[in-house]
Parts: sequence; structure tokens; C-alpha cells
Amino acid sequence: MTGELAVPGFEFGAVASGIKGRGVPDLALIRSVPPATAVALFTRNQVRAAPVLVSAQNARRGRCSVVIINSGNANACTGRRGLRDAVEMVRRTAALLGVSQGEVLVCSTGRIGIPLPMESIRKALPRLVRSLIPGGLTRAARAILTTDAFLKVASYRGRVGRCPFRLIGFAKGAGMIAPDLAPHATMLAFFTTDLKIERRAARNIFQRVADQTFNRITVDGDTSTNDTALLLANGLAGNREVRGRGPGARVFARGLEVVMRRLALMMVEDGEGATKCVKVEVMGAKDNREATRIARAIGNSPLVKTSFFGEDPNWGRILAAAGRAGTTWNPEKSDIYYEGVRVVRRGVSAGGAALARAKRVMKKRRFAVRLDLRRGRGRGSVWASDLSLGYVKLNAHYRT
Amino acid sequence: MTGELAVPGFEFGAVASGIKGRGVPDLALIRSVPPATAVALFTRNQVRAAPVLVSAQNARRGRCSVVIINSGNANACTGRRGLRDAVEMVRRTAALLGVSQGEVLVCSTGRIGIPLPMESIRKALPRLVRSLIPGGLTRAARAILTTDAFLKVASYRGRVGRCPFRLIGFAKGAGMIAPDLAPHATMLAFFTTDLKIERRAARNIFQRVADQTFNRITVDGDTSTNDTALLLANGLAGNREVRGRGPGARVFARGLEVVMRRLALMMVEDGEGATKCVKVEVMGAKDNREATRIARAIGNSPLVKTSFFGEDPNWGRILAAAGRAGTTWNPEKSDIYYEGVRVVRRGVSAGGAALARAKRVMKKRRFAVRLDLRRGRGRGSVWASDLSLGYVKLNAHYRT
Repeated sequence: MTGELAVPGFEFGAVASGIKGRGVPDLALIRSVPPATAVALFTRNQVRAAPVLVSAQNARRGRCSVVIINSGNANACTGRRGLRDAVEMVRRTAALLGVSQGEVLVCSTGRIGIPLPMESIRKALPRLVRSLIPGGLTRAARAILTTDAFLKVASYRGRVGRCPFRLIGFAKGAGMIAPDLAPHATMLAFFTTDLKIERRAARNIFQRVADQTFNRITVDGDTSTNDTALLLANGLAGNREVRGRGPGARVFARGLEVVMRRLALMMVEDGEGATKCVKVEVMGAKDNREATRIARAIGNSPLVKTSFFGEDPNWGRILAAAGRAGTTWNPEKSDIYYEGVRVVRRGVSAGGAALARAKRVMKKRRFAVRLDLRRGRGRGSVWASDLSLGYVKLNAHYRT
Repeated sequence: MTGELAVPGFEFGAVASGIKGRGVPDLALIRSVPPATAVALFTRNQVRAAPVLVSAQNARRGRCSVVIINSGNANACTGRRGLRDAVEMVRRTAALLGVSQGEVLVCSTGRIGIPLPMESIRKALPRLVRSLIPGGLTRAARAILTTDAFLKVASYRGRVGRCPFRLIGFAKGAGMIAPDLAPHATMLAFFTTDLKIERRAARNIFQRVADQTFNRITVDGDTSTNDTALLLANGLAGNREVRGRGPGARVFARGLEVVMRRLALMMVEDGEGATKCVKVEVMGAKDNREATRIARAIGNSPLVKTSFFGEDPNWGRILAAAGRAGTTWNPEKSDIYYEGVRVVRRGVSAGGAALARAKRVMKKRRFAVRLDLRRGRGRGSVWASDLSLGYVKLNAHYRT
């Protein structure tokens, strides 16, 4: 396991500092020697946590040696003190590891509006640095979890020219999930690779793949103040630097998509209270943009999501949600499928037998619903969790 | 009670036709003699039920004698057959009452995608017509309910010049509620008045008041395929016709606002599974439009709504929801209040004592939360229900 989940040049650490209490790991560290080419994507939410502000500034340099992450506290809506605390985490980590502050990024996730317990963090930092080992990824991946039910790690091996490279991603996120990542996300995701890649190529590929994966999942439609996705590439694979749109870029993009899609689906499956992971596909739209817009409206509809939870093929809710997506199309031409079962043909019910079969489809934990507008060639999809009793129970009392 | 809830010239009827079964009333009739000046507002959802299509066409004439309403079946997504059925309901009702088809409107609410049981409706129509009486409003108001827990009726008495007039509204709606009514909504609402008012003035007032009341409530953010609000004014009050922006128009607008606001709040209070009715106010915005946009994002956030259910002053969720509303403002200048209790001052927590007091505020069934952006004079508010265990239970199995 340790040998399996390692990327040349990367070390990982984790400790329990006391933020979460009861000896639960809540601080994690990623270190790359040599310093890695870094691309960061941050939440587009107008309210951005202090660590997002600090990391956004440092990430502009494009180089990163160290990432420090805490869970249990988002350091969001904490004002000037929050900023000071984020900066102090960067400064102390840099000093302990002998790197420049500009090469350190900081991420936080957890409750909003409560100052970080800096005293505990200060005390834990030396232990955290000593915990760094090449095989520490799993422990670090565990230390960043909050309401997550399971660990989220995915890896990929590829080859550019004759050089094999490694890519491992790990993530956390179960609630406040509807990532909307831009080049500046409480989903956190870290991707480490030994590939040598030009920063601009890495940035283009990372944003494009995020748009096709992370930015297409929804648990509750609530985009977080802290969402951050980070790609670190330290070049130790020894390949000729990947640039622009060459074959190397394609290989890396494919690998990244495999890893990011796997993590994205894990987040939906681990959605707070989720019992279903549903692919909502829209096809036959005017264009891809319209298709994706309608898919999002369906994936975010509370009525559609409760019907998933109830395993009830209530396709009228799917049509109604699509109808309020703000685009103009003809419901009377539309077909709806649950997997291969067509329940709506040209806007009307395909009958009771189809419904009974759709109901059986919905018993699965993972299935697809498809709306075909039959007007054009546009396609788009999102992955959505259901809205369950568990979601409400979890969120009614998260902070108390 | 009968004398109380009557408007000169209006009669109301109701019967159980069998759509809902078990002898539950499911057909209602409103009749005005003389024919009334009519203004109708319909859903902006792209998917519009057959009765909406038929009534939209007839309502253009601006005159209406009769409205026939069924509950238990929305006659939505029922294709050509649905259209034929809606037209048949109009035709038979017109024939039985000896009025022209163009003066008859039809409304349906209930399950989507299932053809109307026309045989039962045909048989029940003569009984429905015979049930018409001036004091029948309460029975009609009951017959239009679906998942509603209680009857929704509100009335107003006013005076234009020396002429007293009466206005009574009744409505249904508990789920799929986020009305978005335009001059063409499964909220149904009917307003009957004996005021004499010019159609154009009535239309302007009705749309404006709807924008300030019905269009500012949200249970689940799902705008229905059948939402319809109808204003009927038969002129029997004998006042000089109300036109444009005179004092008469102001009196009527005020009366209509009282009645529509009362019904709108009843819909939120009766929201599916709702345990709270929360006024979400945003002030200090750039303009009213920005304020309303942010208020809607907060009122529709599942995380905010579950915190209402949990009576948990989790203000971080309010800020985070506001932050993804798509406008640009400074969270560090913002204040948040639960009623009079300020829990956030300039973007940061006002401390534990304030939180404890906010928690007490939230024990009430009805309370207000206020976000002050402190940047301008824009204001806007919405009324939102909470997201409860009851909501999920109700909607996971509505059709089965």
C-alpha cells in the first residue's frame, strides 16, 4: 500500500493537533523536493476564506514546495484575524522546512466563522513536519476529511515518450458541494505528479478537466467559500517538458480526467446523506451550453432529488425542472429515459410497464437519467446525489 | 361564515368527482354574473400544462364568466390528449351554464403525466353546476387543495369614492413552490372582487403586487408547470371605473397586496414539511435587484434551510449562499441579524452570547434574518420555508 501510493519527490505528513479533538488527525502536509510547478483553482464564491486569499496570492508565482491543510475549521468569515492566522501558518511552516514563504500554500476546511485554535496548531507544527514520509499520502488524505464517510484517493500511471509518470489525487468533500472552480473551491483536492510540464499547459488542462469533472457534480448546489484544487508537478519523471497541445498534453489530460472523474464521483457517492449517485444527461439540445444548463437545473431540483431517494420514477419533476432552466425548447418533442428505459415519448408517458421497469433501475445505487430534447446536437451532463432524510439530519445540527 | 365570505355577483361550487377517490372534493367552479373583467398570470416554466395553454388563450379576451378547477391531476405532460381534455372541460362547462367558451377558464393541479379521468369528470359536471351558491367559496377553496395542510382564504373590504367593495382571494400550494408568474403558475390562486376596474389598470396592479408577494416566496425553488393566478372583477360595486394611477387604483393595490401577502405567507407556512416561515431580508445592496437576487439565493439554499429546521444560527451558510448569488460585494463589511440579534459584525462573529440569543429567536415558527451589505440603499426580501425531514418524507413517495 505504501509503495503503491507514492509519487517520486513527494512526501506527506499528518497529525492530530486538537482542532477536531479526541485525537482525530486534522493537520496534513504535502512537500515536494524539488519545488513543483503549481496550478491552483479556487472557489468563485464571493465570500472567500482567509486561506483562499493567501494561497491565491502565493499560487500566482507558479511554484510550490509545501501545502499545509487543516480540517475541522474553515477559517472563513474570520476577518483580519483569520488572515493573520493563515499567514502565520504559512510563515511557520516555511521556517520549519527552510523554504520561502511564497512557496507555501495553505488550505482549511470545516466550520465557518470560528477563529482557528492557533495555539494548538503552533504546538503541532514541528510534529507535523517530522511526520513527513513518502508513503504518508493515505494518512494525509484522512486528515483532511470532515463530514466525509470515506477516504477519496485515485491514481494513474502513464507514459510520455519513454518516460513513465505517476499521478495521484486525493480529495475531501461531502456537503456544500457544487464546485465552481476558476483560476483563483469545502471541496479540497490535491494532485501530485512527477511529470515535467510547462505551467501554462498544466493550467489549461487542469481548468478544462475540472470543468468536465469537479464542476459537474452537485450534492446541494451550495458552492463553498473554501473550495480549492491544486496540481503539483515536480518534473522528476525526466520526460521532455510537456507543452501546449502535443501528444504529451493529451496523455496527461486523459490521466488527469480519469483521476478527477473518479474523485468527483466519490464526492457525489459520499454526498451528505446520499443513497444514490445519478448521472443526469441532457442531449439533443441546441448546444452543449444549453444541455449543461438544463442538466444542472435537474440535478439541483429538490423535488427531483427526493424522487431519486424515494426510487420513484417521477419524470414530471424532471421535465418541470428542465422547464425552469431559462432556455426555450419544446417539451412535446422530448424523451426521458431511466438507463435504457424510455418512460416519456414525445412529452407524454410511455405507460405503466415502462414506469415499473424504471422503478427497478432506480433501486441501483448508481444509475443514469437522460432527457433528449430532440432539437439539436448539444450534450451535457452532471452527477447528482439524492436528497435524503440523512441529508436533513446531518445538516440541521452540524454546528451544535 | 357564509355571509362573511361572499362577493356580490359571484357563486362557487364544489363536488367529489372521483379523481382523488374516497369522496374527497376535487372539482370546483367559480361563476360571475355579470361576466368579470379578467387578468390571468401564468407560470414562466417552459413546460406548461394543457389547462395553462387553453386558459392563456381565453384569458386574452379579458372577460371571464366561469372558472373550472380540478385537483388531483395536473393534466401536464399529457400531450394532445391533455389539450383535448382541457378544451372539453371548457366546452361542457360553457354549455351547461349557457356562456360562450371564450369566457371559461380551466385550471388543474396534482400529479403530472397522467391523463385526466374524463369519464368521471363528465359525469360530475352537472352536479358541479347545481352546487353553485354565493356562499360556496370555502367549499371551492377546499376542493382545489392537494398536499396542502390547511385552507387558504383571505379577504379585504375597501372603499373607492363612496362605494364599498369586497375582495376575496383563495389559493392552494405547498410544494413545487417558487412562483414565477408572468402575464401568460402548482400554486393556484383566485381573486374575486365586485370592484369596477379598467382591465389595463387591473393587469398592471396584479402583476406588480404578484412580484412583491407570490413571486417572493420559496418552498423548494421548483417553479411549477401549472401555476396560475386569476383576478376577476365584475364591477357590481357600482364605483366609477378605477383607471390608471388614481386614488382608486392605490386603494385597490393596497387591498390586493394585503390579501396576496396573506395567502403567500400561508403557502410558505404550509410548505411541504415546513416547520418555519422565515423572512430573508437583504439591505444595503447596490440596488433592489441585487438585494432580491441575494435574498433568493439564501432562501433557496438547502444548507441555510436545514439550519432553519435545526434552529441553528449557522450564519456562515447565509454568507456562503449570498456569496454565490453572482454579484460582487464585500463580505467584510456585512452584518447579519436574526431578528434584532446581530450575530455578524463586519464579516466576523459577534460572539457566543449573540449566537445563544439568535438560537432563541429561531425557536419561533416565524422569524426574520437580515443581511446588511452596507454598500448602498438596495433592499429586497423573500419568504422561505425550512427544509425538514417532513419535506423529504412527503416528496420521496408522492406518486406511489
